[in-house]
Amino acid sequence: MGRGEAMPANGTPTRGYTATKDQLQTRLRRIEGQVRGIERMVEDDRYCIDILTQISAVQAALDKVALGLLDGHVRHCVAEGAEEGKADLMSTELMAAVGRLMRRG
Amino acid sequence: MGRGEAMPANGTPTRGYTATKDQLQTRLRRIEGQVRGIERMVEDDRYCIDILTQISAVQAALDKVALGLLDGHVRHCVAEGAEEGKADLMSTELMAAVGRLMRRG
Amino acid sequence: MGRGEAMPANGTPTRGYTATKDQLQTRLRRIEGQVRGIERMVEDDRYCIDILTQISAVQAALDKVALGLLDGHVRHCVAEGAEEGKADLMSTELMAAVGRLMRRG
Amino acid sequence: MGRGEAMPANGTPTRGYTATKDQLQTRLRRIEGQVRGIERMVEDDRYCIDILTQISAVQAALDKVALGLLDGHVRHCVAEGAEEGKADLMSTELMAAVGRLMRRG
Repeated sequence: MGRGEAMPANGTPTRGYTATKDQLQTRLRRIEGQVRGIERMVEDDRYCIDILTQISAVQAALDKVALGLLDGHVRHCVAEGAEEGKADLMSTELMAAVGRLMRRG
Repeated sequence: MGRGEAMPANGTPTRGYTATKDQLQTRLRRIEGQVRGIERMVEDDRYCIDILTQISAVQAALDKVALGLLDGHVRHCVAEGAEEGKADLMSTELMAAVGRLMRRG
Repeated sequence: MGRGEAMPANGTPTRGYTATKDQLQTRLRRIEGQVRGIERMVEDDRYCIDILTQISAVQAALDKVALGLLDGHVRHCVAEGAEEGKADLMSTELMAAVGRLMRRG
Repeated sequence: MGRGEAMPANGTPTRGYTATKDQLQTRLRRIEGQVRGIERMVEDDRYCIDILTQISAVQAALDKVALGLLDGHVRHCVAEGAEEGKADLMSTELMAAVGRLMRRG
């Protein structure tokens, strides 16, 4: 989103990974709470395996946020890229982002 | 590639993950050889950790092939998607493929 | 940690992924701050690619926390598992955790 | 396996990711065939998205082989590590392998 892409504030997208701004913010607030929960688990010396399960859950939730953001961006690039004369730049940026997500950082 | 995307047979792309058909075929033949090597290691009861190292190397090589293929496809979609009137379908297909690559299957 | 594994409070482990409780807590607080930063980026309609870069950074940081936790647990299991008569249970739990981390959730 | 771990040749393990040598060899031969199939798809200029789907399937199959190998190794390390006086070395090797599998190479 940004740079001309309007992210719908509260629409109800139904295709694949698409997510509204509201949905992304809700998910991110939940993720923030999950990370705080993991901090407390470490503080309380909780069982390692249980903490790892929570970390895996946060990773899955972050993947979902990333796919939701990427979906809107891909739709914008495919629909408008050529017209805006930025097809090459957009493709290079997009692939770099996908590469980072696949390698996780 | 396919469906109107010409994959350069032996050009020398220099941007990001772009790969020619020749490069992809060379990498895939090497990966096939690496998998046969892993089969021999299991047959010969080689040390588990050494086999796992080879498996990680094959996964990294497959990621590179996937990113090379995806790069050409993304460039085609961004450059031609709107014109061909298939922006929506292309975006949905693309995101499904990225989701599978991130989750590995 | 937990169940008999003492996680050093502020020692200075030097091998591989080992992390002290202090190090894990510091990293998790930083991750919590990064997630809040991502929430603000979405709120402010920042450029999608920049938000994705931050998500990849959080994923990498969470992987590092997970490997730090797992390292202490593996050392405990290998050193004490047989003696405590829980080798089989420990191995099954450990592998389930590794499988979730590899598949991310 | 290797170094004193007997990998059962054709037993029928039932726990978690455990795999016999026969099962691992069968899976690796199938993976080799899948990679050859991907080579043909590239040769025939098949649709990019379909090739990516096959790559994701090979990645998932390799993950399964890796988890099967790791499972046997972890069980050996937890059961015998302390007795053999190699708990520390085994743990370090194991964590390095898990780190490579999580980062894919």
